[in-house]
Amino acid sequence: MAKVNEQFLKLPGNYLFAEVAKQVVAFKAAHPQQRVISLGIGDVTRPLCPAVIDALHRATDEMGQHEKFRGYGPERGYSFLREAIIANDYVPRGIALEADEVFVNDGAKSDTGNFQELFARENSVAVTDPVYPVYIDSNAMSGRTGVFADGKWTEVTYLPCTMENDFVPQLPTKKVDLIYLCYPNNPTGTVLSKRELQRWVEYAQQHDAIILYDAAYQAYIRNAEIPRSIYEIPGAKNVAVEFRSYSKTAGFTGVRCGYTIVPKEVSVVDRDGKRVSLNALWDRRQCTKFNGTSYISQCAAAAIYTEAGKKQVQETIDYYMENATRMRQTLQTLGYTVFGGEHAPYLWVKTPDGIDSWTFFHRLLEGAALVCTPGVGFGPSGEGYIRFTAFGDREDCIEAMERMTAWTK
Amino acid sequence: MAKVNEQFLKLPGNYLFAEVAKQVVAFKAAHPQQRVISLGIGDVTRPLCPAVIDALHRATDEMGQHEKFRGYGPERGYSFLREAIIANDYVPRGIALEADEVFVNDGAKSDTGNFQELFARENSVAVTDPVYPVYIDSNAMSGRTGVFADGKWTEVTYLPCTMENDFVPQLPTKKVDLIYLCYPNNPTGTVLSKRELQRWVEYAQQHDAIILYDAAYQAYIRNAEIPRSIYEIPGAKNVAVEFRSYSKTAGFTGVRCGYTIVPKEVSVVDRDGKRVSLNALWDRRQCTKFNGTSYISQCAAAAIYTEAGKKQVQETIDYYMENATRMRQTLQTLGYTVFGGEHAPYLWVKTPDGIDSWTFFHRLLEGAALVCTPGVGFGPSGEGYIRFTAFGDREDCIEAMERMTAWTK
Repeated sequence: MAKVNEQFLKLPGNYLFAEVAKQVVAFKAAHPQQRVISLGIGDVTRPLCPAVIDALHRATDEMGQHEKFRGYGPERGYSFLREAIIANDYVPRGIALEADEVFVNDGAKSDTGNFQELFARENSVAVTDPVYPVYIDSNAMSGRTGVFADGKWTEVTYLPCTMENDFVPQLPTKKVDLIYLCYPNNPTGTVLSKRELQRWVEYAQQHDAIILYDAAYQAYIRNAEIPRSIYEIPGAKNVAVEFRSYSKTAGFTGVRCGYTIVPKEVSVVDRDGKRVSLNALWDRRQCTKFNGTSYISQCAAAAIYTEAGKKQVQETIDYYMENATRMRQTLQTLGYTVFGGEHAPYLWVKTPDGIDSWTFFHRLLEGAALVCTPGVGFGPSGEGYIRFTAFGDREDCIEAMERMTAWTK
Repeated sequence: MAKVNEQFLKLPGNYLFAEVAKQVVAFKAAHPQQRVISLGIGDVTRPLCPAVIDALHRATDEMGQHEKFRGYGPERGYSFLREAIIANDYVPRGIALEADEVFVNDGAKSDTGNFQELFARENSVAVTDPVYPVYIDSNAMSGRTGVFADGKWTEVTYLPCTMENDFVPQLPTKKVDLIYLCYPNNPTGTVLSKRELQRWVEYAQQHDAIILYDAAYQAYIRNAEIPRSIYEIPGAKNVAVEFRSYSKTAGFTGVRCGYTIVPKEVSVVDRDGKRVSLNALWDRRQCTKFNGTSYISQCAAAAIYTEAGKKQVQETIDYYMENATRMRQTLQTLGYTVFGGEHAPYLWVKTPDGIDSWTFFHRLLEGAALVCTPGVGFGPSGEGYIRFTAFGDREDCIEAMERMTAWTK
């Protein structure tokens, strides 16, 4: 008799964005004449830049020619892309990496979700709170999180990030083994300074913990002093894995390509206290359950690193950040307390008068046909906040702020 | 202190194809003047067909236009593709499916590797032997296989398929919960009749077991009587999940797209004996750890179902099957005992004089600069066999058979 993985049954209701989508569908059905503007899910809207489009066409043409056709690629990704990643994303920040420390994937969600497979079930997990749901849910499926009660998992260490502590998570008082950090942060849009990130690396060194560092939004950092990679911190290569994505950098949410850095130095212990390299383990995992990313998508990613590609990608990032700046200004003028949006495409807004996240979500949808993401959906410390994204069209962004102004007054 | 998933440490040495590749690299280094022809790894060599190339270009152009750009797609895949799958791959065989029973993915390897996550660790696993290594290795990583000793996992039920039983696996005598079947079979190239497949569906019904049916090679079946889908068997929707791939159908090994069918009827039990639908569970898994397949790859897959696409894809399959026919004839003429190659792109060849698989592999590489895959790499019952693939160029296929002839005599 085939038996279910009971851990799945402990997962609460709907995945956050699915629940938001359901509510929006219901609203649209009830109000077919209203144009809903979504500032909710973090999906991009600008088209792929010309350098990327050219690369997609070129790669497609190769796939139609016998002598240039590519079948299975290397599971870790093509060398041309891995070398471009190191040369452009790491060397300029003073970080040396070897090509086989880079694992190209079909997007950061897969790897941030799957990487926990390498760890024993008994490891304890810490997350900043609020948090991107994938880190917790993937650990829940593996039985590392206890049970879900009152909006929290009993065996997860939540590190609150709220306006009270300036969104700087405090080091855990209870021992933890696996620490998920995401900076620039999704959902709060806040960043960590080098000094603050250094404390986490030191904690991991002292406690032999692993930091799973999600840097999917690093391209939005506007200040050279803010670390873009955790490997800017001395010693991080021994304790950290880093996830990166082209989804938000270059509009690849529909193209599917990202990468993960697993330094050869980073290791965990087995039952006998022997060190085991995560790089070799992740390679074994990927060779067994993954068959590489589309060649065409990898060519597209490589085009981001050409001179034309860099310039064009930066223009799109600037476009979204101009949205963020306008949204911040309007919301602050209206009296809202706003965080993020300076080095990230997310604005994290305190709901007024202490109302809860979902109530604000519903009022905003009903009153202004605007979609936000309820902060509590990202964890208990998100209660009383909502998230806006800056990924929309300029026109939508302007109209959304006009509606906010009319609705708030 | 972060601890490793000890299950990974139980995995034996190299992944089969990685080991073969290593041996070939060593041979090439020692014999730089010789041109090695690979009949080893099952990778395609013909370019993508014109209908697919056109679709890739069209999808690329859309991604460069603001009004047509696509970001995140549905995790289950776009409707246009799921509907084409049902209309073309199932309805003509008398199988009705709903669109949300189809899950588009980035290739069958991911889903055949990941699907076992839905099951409790204590389920017992059966595989035909020899077998595609992913089924076992992915279960090993989850701790379902015991320990590896003398070429076997202690807690896996191996169902031998050899010339002695005409490659028809016998029903297990020991109770099993999860059964992996792959037909047309990789590696043996053999098929199961409807009657034989019916026995497996009945076994699963009687024992409340789940069949994980890998139909990645169904496009190579040349006889209408042989089932292409397990759902041609009455009752299969209650007990079977089916994996399909465009990799071998349409040369998508470098494009990355396939799909999995999870009927709503198929379910497993929880601790209290309550039925749990696998469709809902798999959706939850995919929504958490997967973000959909490249829009461009999905458009390419849809083009396979156009009139032009069907014709062109069939021409490529016919090309490979002509290779297979030529190889079968030559090898049989030379006195080899050959299986498969009639409804599959694989030939499964008995090594002469009882020599073992790896010895034959090395002799063939040294003597004729030809690469095969050692049968024992697919499981203990593969010992004494080797696998040839028919995916090469015609010229290489002809030359390979000339070399075989010269070397064998």
